[in-house]
Amino acid sequence: MTGFASHARTSVQFGPGSFAGLGEAARSRGFRRSLIVSDPGIRKARFVEHAQASLAAAGIAAGCFDGFGENPDSAQAEAGRQYAAAFEPDSIIGLGGGSSMDCAKAINFLFTNGGTMRDYWGYAKAAAPLLPMIGIPTTTGTGSEAQTYALISDADTHVKMACGAPGAAFGLVILDPELAVSQPRPVLAAAGYDAISHAVETLVTTKRNHMSDCYARESWRLLSKAFPRLLSGQGGIEAAGDMQMGAYLAGAAIEHSMLGAAHATANPLTARYGIAHGHAIALMLDHVVAWNELVAGGRYSEFDQDLPARLDELASAANLPRSLGSSGVPESALPQLAEDASRQWTGTFNPRKFDAAAALEIYQCAF
Amino acid sequence: MTGFASHARTSVQFGPGSFAGLGEAARSRGFRRSLIVSDPGIRKARFVEHAQASLAAAGIAAGCFDGFGENPDSAQAEAGRQYAAAFEPDSIIGLGGGSSMDCAKAINFLFTNGGTMRDYWGYAKAAAPLLPMIGIPTTTGTGSEAQTYALISDADTHVKMACGAPGAAFGLVILDPELAVSQPRPVLAAAGYDAISHAVETLVTTKRNHMSDCYARESWRLLSKAFPRLLSGQGGIEAAGDMQMGAYLAGAAIEHSMLGAAHATANPLTARYGIAHGHAIALMLDHVVAWNELVAGGRYSEFDQDLPARLDELASAANLPRSLGSSGVPESALPQLAEDASRQWTGTFNPRKFDAAAALEIYQCAF
Repeated sequence: MTGFASHARTSVQFGPGSFAGLGEAARSRGFRRSLIVSDPGIRKARFVEHAQASLAAAGIAAGCFDGFGENPDSAQAEAGRQYAAAFEPDSIIGLGGGSSMDCAKAINFLFTNGGTMRDYWGYAKAAAPLLPMIGIPTTTGTGSEAQTYALISDADTHVKMACGAPGAAFGLVILDPELAVSQPRPVLAAAGYDAISHAVETLVTTKRNHMSDCYARESWRLLSKAFPRLLSGQGGIEAAGDMQMGAYLAGAAIEHSMLGAAHATANPLTARYGIAHGHAIALMLDHVVAWNELVAGGRYSEFDQDLPARLDELASAANLPRSLGSSGVPESALPQLAEDASRQWTGTFNPRKFDAAAALEIYQCAF
Repeated sequence: MTGFASHARTSVQFGPGSFAGLGEAARSRGFRRSLIVSDPGIRKARFVEHAQASLAAAGIAAGCFDGFGENPDSAQAEAGRQYAAAFEPDSIIGLGGGSSMDCAKAINFLFTNGGTMRDYWGYAKAAAPLLPMIGIPTTTGTGSEAQTYALISDADTHVKMACGAPGAAFGLVILDPELAVSQPRPVLAAAGYDAISHAVETLVTTKRNHMSDCYARESWRLLSKAFPRLLSGQGGIEAAGDMQMGAYLAGAAIEHSMLGAAHATANPLTARYGIAHGHAIALMLDHVVAWNELVAGGRYSEFDQDLPARLDELASAANLPRSLGSSGVPESALPQLAEDASRQWTGTFNPRKFDAAAALEIYQCAF
């Protein structure tokens, strides 16, 4: 039995209409001047406008930085820092998908502690206190809102850097199912399957503990039901809320137990072939589970007697890609991808010893 | 779908040996002068001595107030306040069973905000900030370490007052299975069954939500396995840790969803007949579950297809009393007890409408 620490950092306000309480929540936390970090799509959907109105009604000035897209990089974070330097916020509000959450954290690092994102690669590299933050996710995927890490790509090398610190936690996360109910189907499919992979991977990592078990199990329970219902156009606000809560809890599970070989093998597919993260995960997860079953089967069967088949079914229902071969990855590339995968930090937490030979075996199944 | 708030207030440090980290944990939180609140039994077991040594090594002075026993009352809390007024702590450490946790909170109210415990009956009646606290439970029952309420009896009227406030949360809870592994069997039986009742009641209350579900389910999973194993002398440190974590999570579930009719009918048995809380719960819980099944059956069957039978089995294995009649309660007293039960606040959260007629029906089954 190994010990663990579980840190109380993030409060949650859940429920339809909770987004309208943003201004009051921010005021009660002493915010007076907030930087909203939100991507252009969210801005177009007028969520930023609503946030600003709620904040204004509570006497809080709010600027918005939206100069980033999917997979924010260090140059975009620096642009955000420059925006912040001019606006001088005392607080930051991340509003949008995982990119907005990650970018909010990244700007927080740079604005409060200077330097470049590379300085924060790893954990707890920020000496000065960070600004308090509120996170408002509009997609149901990464669970970044529950985590102290930001994933930021190096603009030069394209390496994904995980930059974390206790102060990079959102003090409050607002989960309003009304913001998540109208996700475009492709976003729901890719992000939702990613959340499912978090529930599955966190259940079996070598770092798992009582708290990650608690969160992983409840997130699987919520996500595995809500995901197919939402995809088939059923469920509405109730299922959107389940999906949102499930994605949050799966993120909280990651914060306690890290991830495994599905993320280790998916990341090189994104880096080398530009395959979107959720698609890369969909290509790998069921094969990783089948490969891990030798050591983790008893745990997987809690979720489903035949978890690889169930995952394949969920991915198929979401029209996610089902083979590397049909996703533009040549068979000749597999050894190089396996090399890359073996160097992913996240693979070290996989329950079955994961190296380049293991990665190649899994890639071949996924091919 | 109703909204809810989940507040991040209590961090957890779990694991064998974590108690030895008390001094460092207290220092990192800025404690310099700590009041340890601990009952005489715990003091005799030398836990207080170990705590003081750990604190001293971290440069923290520590006094100890131990002037209370089971079900601490307002006069004992006042005695603790007087001790604190002389010692002038900047922090409080609750060490022991639920009584120590409750008494630590009560002394905190009185020392920082003055007045008497009656002034704090209800929620958020303390205007001035409370002292930061660390909780170290040595029994696996109440889950008070996860909650913002203290249960304190009025020394004059013997009414149990629930006194709560956000600041009455423990900022850190240290769960060291080594402290819980050697509970006397009768303590384990009564406290452990109480924890089980928390998992069962929180799963079905009218206030239940995603977070209470998450905690209730994981606590049942842990407690329902560890409780019979520990009682039969198996499991050792591993089962003690599961029991400890289960009791904590069940307490966290209460913090999100309150309790129900088992606690509402148990409390008058304690007030009028001095039946220990865990015994009173053991007398009532399976009958309440059977009575609630009409409205909550689907949820109960998640835990067990025949949950009343399973609960009866768990109580019997613990040698807990199985009928009111054989526990010194005369049949003629049931109507009065039912009247008392119908006025218990906690009954208002029961999933099936609970009044005096309902309470009488349940008491008759338990008789």
